[in-house]
Amino acid sequence: MNRTSSRLLVAALALASAASALAQQAPKPENLIKWRQSAFQVIAWNSGRIKASLDGGYDKDQVLRSANAIAAIANSGLGSLFPAGTETGKGWHDTTVKADAFTDTPKFAEHGGDFARASSELVRLVSSGGDATAVKDQFAKLQKTCKSCHDDFRNAN
Amino acid sequence: MNRTSSRLLVAALALASAASALAQQAPKPENLIKWRQSAFQVIAWNSGRIKASLDGGYDKDQVLRSANAIAAIANSGLGSLFPAGTETGKGWHDTTVKADAFTDTPKFAEHGGDFARASSELVRLVSSGGDATAVKDQFAKLQKTCKSCHDDFRNAN
Repeated sequence: MNRTSSRLLVAALALASAASALAQQAPKPENLIKWRQSAFQVIAWNSGRIKASLDGGYDKDQVLRSANAIAAIANSGLGSLFPAGTETGKGWHDTTVKADAFTDTPKFAEHGGDFARASSELVRLVSSGGDATAVKDQFAKLQKTCKSCHDDFRNAN
Repeated sequence: MNRTSSRLLVAALALASAASALAQQAPKPENLIKWRQSAFQVIAWNSGRIKASLDGGYDKDQVLRSANAIAAIANSGLGSLFPAGTETGKGWHDTTVKADAFTDTPKFAEHGGDFARASSELVRLVSSGGDATAVKDQFAKLQKTCKSCHDDFRNAN
């Protein structure tokens, strides 16, 4: 083997290795769908706890812990769980996302931003000692951002 | 009906109504199991993103978003997803929790505390500008808290 072909071989092996590393890192569509369905459930769990606390005696510490969990997930880059190639498929169950989420991406991103901002504002309000009525109002605003996005981008199941 | 029995009836109806409201609020075992399996997956998603970032070029913003999500979930009261009555059952799949988690509750709670503290420390370190090596060390400590609890309280599946 001459020097040129030897160098080419080394370069080809390096490229193959890099491609293999990338392939290992890129999550499978079924995992991405499972993760977004899981994120939805963790948000639902915490929304339920906030609602129960606001309907009963307002427990600030519990509401803050739940609001923190929702806001941290909302601000964690949920959009990255909806790449091209995950329009259909199964995570825990068949995805309920509408194809529009992958075509009207500015609107999809706008909903994501609304959700992140509303949940961060809930955290700010609760941690700064807002009263139960103010917290209830902000929680209602947060829930509207969920419903608005689901109306546009989620099929009824 | 005299006044005393009338008052007793009103009191009994109020109690029944309160009991009914409580029953409506108490989540079903299958939901609790689904939520803890979902929380695990959201943690796994974010751990994977932190690992990928530390193995590649260290992206502080992404690591902070992921660490925030893990810490917020770890501090949200995960223990409440493991009440008596959920030793067995199915959420997304059959639970893999060991019965010991419901009997050796001090140890289970200690693991939960270790996990919450290690993830909060990761957030503190990343947000205060710790370098990639320090972040990698703290992330390894965080992962040890996951493994330690799973070794004690999760059946291999």
